[in-house]
Amino acid sequence: MVPSRALHCVTLAIISASAVFAQKPVTDPLAFVDPLIGTERMGHVFPGATVPFGMVQVSPDTDTIPYSVEGKYNPEVYSTCSGYQYKDSTIVGFSHTHFSGTGHSDLGDILLMPTAGPLQMNPGTAAAPGSGFRSVYHHDHEQARPGYYQVLLEDHGINAEVTATARVGFHRYTYPETGTGHVILDLEHGIYNYPDKNTWTYVRVENDTLVTGWRQTNGWARTRTVYFAMVFSKPITQYGQQPDPRPTPYHGFWRKFDQTKDFPEMAGRQLRAWFDFDVQAGKPLLVKVALSSVGTDGALANLRTELPHWDFDRTVTKAQDAWRTELRRIDAKSTRPEVLTNFYTAMYHACLSPTVYMDVDGRYKGLDQNVHTATGFTNYTTFSLWDTYRALHPLFNIIQQQRSGDFINSMLAHYDQSAEHMLPIWSNSANENWCMIGYHAVSAIADADAKGIPGFNAQRALDACVAFAKNGSYDGLQDYMDKGYVPEDRNGSSVSKTLEYAYDDRCIANMAKSLGDTALAREFNTRSLNYRNVFDKASGFMRPRLNDGTFLQPFDPLRTDAPGFVEGNSWNYSFYVPHEPDDLVRVMGGKQRFGDHLDSLFTMHLADEYFAVTEDITRDGILGNYVHGNEPSHHIIYLYNYSDRPWMAGKRVREVLDRMYKPTPDGLSGNDDCGQMSAWYIFSAMGFYPMEPGSERYELGAPVLHRATIALPDGKAFTVLAKNQGPKNVYVKAVSLNGVKLDRHTITHAEIMAGGTLTFEMTAKPARRSVGK
Amino acid sequence: MVPSRALHCVTLAIISASAVFAQKPVTDPLAFVDPLIGTERMGHVFPGATVPFGMVQVSPDTDTIPYSVEGKYNPEVYSTCSGYQYKDSTIVGFSHTHFSGTGHSDLGDILLMPTAGPLQMNPGTAAAPGSGFRSVYHHDHEQARPGYYQVLLEDHGINAEVTATARVGFHRYTYPETGTGHVILDLEHGIYNYPDKNTWTYVRVENDTLVTGWRQTNGWARTRTVYFAMVFSKPITQYGQQPDPRPTPYHGFWRKFDQTKDFPEMAGRQLRAWFDFDVQAGKPLLVKVALSSVGTDGALANLRTELPHWDFDRTVTKAQDAWRTELRRIDAKSTRPEVLTNFYTAMYHACLSPTVYMDVDGRYKGLDQNVHTATGFTNYTTFSLWDTYRALHPLFNIIQQQRSGDFINSMLAHYDQSAEHMLPIWSNSANENWCMIGYHAVSAIADADAKGIPGFNAQRALDACVAFAKNGSYDGLQDYMDKGYVPEDRNGSSVSKTLEYAYDDRCIANMAKSLGDTALAREFNTRSLNYRNVFDKASGFMRPRLNDGTFLQPFDPLRTDAPGFVEGNSWNYSFYVPHEPDDLVRVMGGKQRFGDHLDSLFTMHLADEYFAVTEDITRDGILGNYVHGNEPSHHIIYLYNYSDRPWMAGKRVREVLDRMYKPTPDGLSGNDDCGQMSAWYIFSAMGFYPMEPGSERYELGAPVLHRATIALPDGKAFTVLAKNQGPKNVYVKAVSLNGVKLDRHTITHAEIMAGGTLTFEMTAKPARRSVGK
Repeated sequence: MVPSRALHCVTLAIISASAVFAQKPVTDPLAFVDPLIGTERMGHVFPGATVPFGMVQVSPDTDTIPYSVEGKYNPEVYSTCSGYQYKDSTIVGFSHTHFSGTGHSDLGDILLMPTAGPLQMNPGTAAAPGSGFRSVYHHDHEQARPGYYQVLLEDHGINAEVTATARVGFHRYTYPETGTGHVILDLEHGIYNYPDKNTWTYVRVENDTLVTGWRQTNGWARTRTVYFAMVFSKPITQYGQQPDPRPTPYHGFWRKFDQTKDFPEMAGRQLRAWFDFDVQAGKPLLVKVALSSVGTDGALANLRTELPHWDFDRTVTKAQDAWRTELRRIDAKSTRPEVLTNFYTAMYHACLSPTVYMDVDGRYKGLDQNVHTATGFTNYTTFSLWDTYRALHPLFNIIQQQRSGDFINSMLAHYDQSAEHMLPIWSNSANENWCMIGYHAVSAIADADAKGIPGFNAQRALDACVAFAKNGSYDGLQDYMDKGYVPEDRNGSSVSKTLEYAYDDRCIANMAKSLGDTALAREFNTRSLNYRNVFDKASGFMRPRLNDGTFLQPFDPLRTDAPGFVEGNSWNYSFYVPHEPDDLVRVMGGKQRFGDHLDSLFTMHLADEYFAVTEDITRDGILGNYVHGNEPSHHIIYLYNYSDRPWMAGKRVREVLDRMYKPTPDGLSGNDDCGQMSAWYIFSAMGFYPMEPGSERYELGAPVLHRATIALPDGKAFTVLAKNQGPKNVYVKAVSLNGVKLDRHTITHAEIMAGGTLTFEMTAKPARRSVGK
Repeated sequence: MVPSRALHCVTLAIISASAVFAQKPVTDPLAFVDPLIGTERMGHVFPGATVPFGMVQVSPDTDTIPYSVEGKYNPEVYSTCSGYQYKDSTIVGFSHTHFSGTGHSDLGDILLMPTAGPLQMNPGTAAAPGSGFRSVYHHDHEQARPGYYQVLLEDHGINAEVTATARVGFHRYTYPETGTGHVILDLEHGIYNYPDKNTWTYVRVENDTLVTGWRQTNGWARTRTVYFAMVFSKPITQYGQQPDPRPTPYHGFWRKFDQTKDFPEMAGRQLRAWFDFDVQAGKPLLVKVALSSVGTDGALANLRTELPHWDFDRTVTKAQDAWRTELRRIDAKSTRPEVLTNFYTAMYHACLSPTVYMDVDGRYKGLDQNVHTATGFTNYTTFSLWDTYRALHPLFNIIQQQRSGDFINSMLAHYDQSAEHMLPIWSNSANENWCMIGYHAVSAIADADAKGIPGFNAQRALDACVAFAKNGSYDGLQDYMDKGYVPEDRNGSSVSKTLEYAYDDRCIANMAKSLGDTALAREFNTRSLNYRNVFDKASGFMRPRLNDGTFLQPFDPLRTDAPGFVEGNSWNYSFYVPHEPDDLVRVMGGKQRFGDHLDSLFTMHLADEYFAVTEDITRDGILGNYVHGNEPSHHIIYLYNYSDRPWMAGKRVREVLDRMYKPTPDGLSGNDDCGQMSAWYIFSAMGFYPMEPGSERYELGAPVLHRATIALPDGKAFTVLAKNQGPKNVYVKAVSLNGVKLDRHTITHAEIMAGGTLTFEMTAKPARRSVGK
């Protein structure tokens, strides 16, 4: 089944069965997006419906594996980070919040499941068909498009469709027979659930078509509440809740009502409610579900403002128009449909997060758990910054400049509301989950500053960055400031941290310089050289150092789980000096040794024992020992530009573009990580990459597209043209900008934003192009 | 120790040790208030500091008995309904919310405990001195005054004092030695706690003097959050939290900080935090703690608005001035100091609830869990209406007319926000706890209407009352409407419900009549006669009836726990027809038989087996089988006015006034029930009582005061004068109003509000005064 998907994707616009999907010109970029790509194995993306950067991302959840039972992590849960795993055979319902591509998870709030036949209040198990309300489904009765998802729930004979606005999920359920149809509202359900994850759930039946409530959880986000307002297109005929499995001693007071049936106020830790409707065969029941972080009143206002009507098809059209707007920011051309599918699906995945996090009136729950109003900006959440500072934020700084300013303002609001006086690390839903390392908000901010993103106060942002970088209570930072490195015996993952801190410090220095604070620039430039303090000349690798200054023994540069590193081994992390590549080449022994070293990374065989501890990727996600399926290596290929064999950048880029991104459900070789993997593809497919975010430079690689035109503000455009493009022509013979031959391996942001044409001449043989800096 | 308290009380103003309590003229009503009265045994009042109707009621909690362990009710917890039980030997700290006099409980939020010596993070047990942070205390080092409480915490040598504004608790802790002093913030602590009661707790150390957070509970109020903002007068030197006893699988992400110490963001189900200060011997540490139902920002605004300064003594003075204002609404005179102490302590207790429930900006959490703004009224909560409709709300309708209008508007806001479209039954903190029976908000509203309370929309209120009274899903009400009674085999406590519904129906009829809706008045007047449907002529008692119309067998009119009744036996409940006393006399066989029947109630001996199941009272709280310590009987004495021996009303009233209210810690014979027991005292001590709230009539009894002058609007006054008053002169010989002899046993509200003098001539012998209606 899998191989056929590529074909399916390019012909999407033609085989569409629904009137909504009337034939479009094949230049419609929507035709090249397949949300099912990456839903199998490690991609961890979801196939459901959302508008770009939507607060509501309504998607089918295929399993209910608990994150832990009795406090112990359950490794099987990893497959359901997005709620959906392509290989799963059943769907438990449609929840309204999902992370795209993460390697840890949360969310899956406010699950709805339409059912027919006898009422079942338990999801049952996939292994036991019919054991609960979940349903078997098959991919040949499933469609996933930007802003639209459809599936046949076979156990119930119900055709379920979902679409969305920014804050509202819209469901269309077509029941097979006239009679009683059920809708289950499961607030117990969630992604990465564990028995005590719900702290409270609440449901109010406001009238016979309106239901409100919330789900409050202690999860990856520790103190989080999702409020909802839900309206049905038909009156509820009867409703109820399953008995509370954990009644409190106070429950006796409520006995003056029969609370199991038609009682409008439900509360408890694990609510599941059911609603019955008189349904007619073939005439759908419609449900709109709006979310809010503020309250059920906020959710209801979102619903009434964004979706005042019941026209499902119009909502699909509007969502798809919103997607076209984002996708058309780059007009890509290729003779290879699979390349276009990869490219536009990457564009799609790159616009799923950060997510809007405020009501239509600007109110949102802040990090301090108070309600704030976003003034002059749209507030966003879902900042997976350790991943996304690398290429996704730089991408936004070209094609989403307005939003990028809003992202920075959202980070600064986070800073203002932070008890720790810190910018976000991995923030979601008014929470900091502290996942991963570094202070990479600094990079995202400095990149926006370097690229002239308007709409935020640069000095205020710099102050926040400096405060962040000087927070001695954070993760080895005091030692880093005192000693110039994080001692492994005092703080784990010490090499990864030292290297990433040093890079982030350069971002601060760049920004300080641009704001005219030379003393600060000098201070942080000095800090940015701290990578040298963990380089072990003897082994030739970055290596953990102890508090006494000595290097850690023993040392195995291949083990990802070795002390000193996180989600990358020393082999890969030793290249993590994106801001001083020339110096890195120097300390590693010069251009030739550096080139040899790079080659060996890509050509060596990583033994099974080492691969087994490599995180978040499939075997497809590595080339030798180069781990593309996780982020620390994403810049490495572009370091070839600083070696004696710069042409190898093109070869390796094309190898990764072709091998690690495929137009199939298992086509992503690692977690998409909120769009970072996709952003890598988008840049690299166009032939350049932001190796050092926070600077204005992009490294040149080798495009896989034939042509890409970036729409710029003021009607300008920047076009990348690949002459003599072809599957085997992976080397770059020459590059010219606006007809002038380039003898360098970088272009600048200003050159892009000025508009013009960057022309690559491709060739099948290594080309010793001059690339003096 | 107990007998000496009476002396202590009347000399309170003179023996005061603090400069704050400089000598006042002995006419200062404050001198006659002793908040310790009723703190022993069944009174369930708290001795701590509050302003009248304050949102913050900060008081020492003496024990930590759990409400339940593993879901089973623990009868011992009953003694700690107010957090404080006079006989307890230790104090665990000072929490900021308390119910006054209830027979079930909740609250006890945001406990602070100052400690010295080694840090202890567990409260320990009273049985094991030194086992935790709790401290031994003794009553001879304790002072309780309106708006002020002081105690010596002997384990720590700390003198602790508290006072309050409406929304802020103010603590003054004087440590014994210069050095490190601790303050424990215990969010696990609560009244009627059980292991899962906390759903979430949260603390933010905003800076070195400001801490915010909240406690969220699933208790009597099912979905409740109390936010706080706390400022210290000195900087925190270090702080921390006890390790989370129930870490979640997500806790690993937080390990990049040492969260046990100086980490500003704490969250979990059971937080306890500690704060250290450099304290100096004799120089107090001050702490201000503001509450909010809206958010920590609301709490902080409350703090900054209400208590911008650090002058503790000034705050005490202001609180006491506020109390004087309320207490002086009735100027009481007696030659017996204990009577004045009883009277003014009752006045004090009558002004502890309802409690303010909104921030200084008018925002409050509504019953729908959204944030609302009270426009044009002050929002209140803590409506224990089954208790307080009887005499407390009628009292408010004389001496708290402004607040009474606000109470009605608060009930109407509750109605507007209610998923069940119901007025409050027992509402607290944006929740309905459904405690007890009836729809007595109707009575409180009708009484306000009958008495011309301004400031609420009477038609809107009537509509709400009617909707409430026609809610067929509520507690047997559909059967009541269909059959004219609640069938015991379909809904328990059926006689109590039928009788109370019938009375409430008369309230609606009265209000409908006053608003000119004669059809509605007729409908509800018909309903109001439903008490007849549960009267069993054979036994002469109100008796449970079954769905088939027959009376329940067996039937024991003395058992309080018998089917058909709640918190009262048939003997007492059979008198529950406050709105049709003449008809009750008729059905019970005429005036003489009725008088005999009343006499037998007061003179019979209630065998131990029956007393054992009588709720909420001490042996002192009964007279024969008359149960004064609980509410259903509160009107009964005044029914003597309808018998052949009306003079007995005076004798019985005086017996209850003298025997069941004493100026001692155990001086309340039953739960004060948010002021209802006290309101009974206040009315009865003045010689009249609202036997039928919702009408404009008061029954005359026999005053125990020598004189009482009620300050009325527009500078008018209504004076009650008792001539020939004396301990044995309990009978009324004659009554005159403004010099005109009364030949009736009632006065009207209009007569009171017109101002004037009601003169009782007292005598020691039964006086066959003419009392034609």
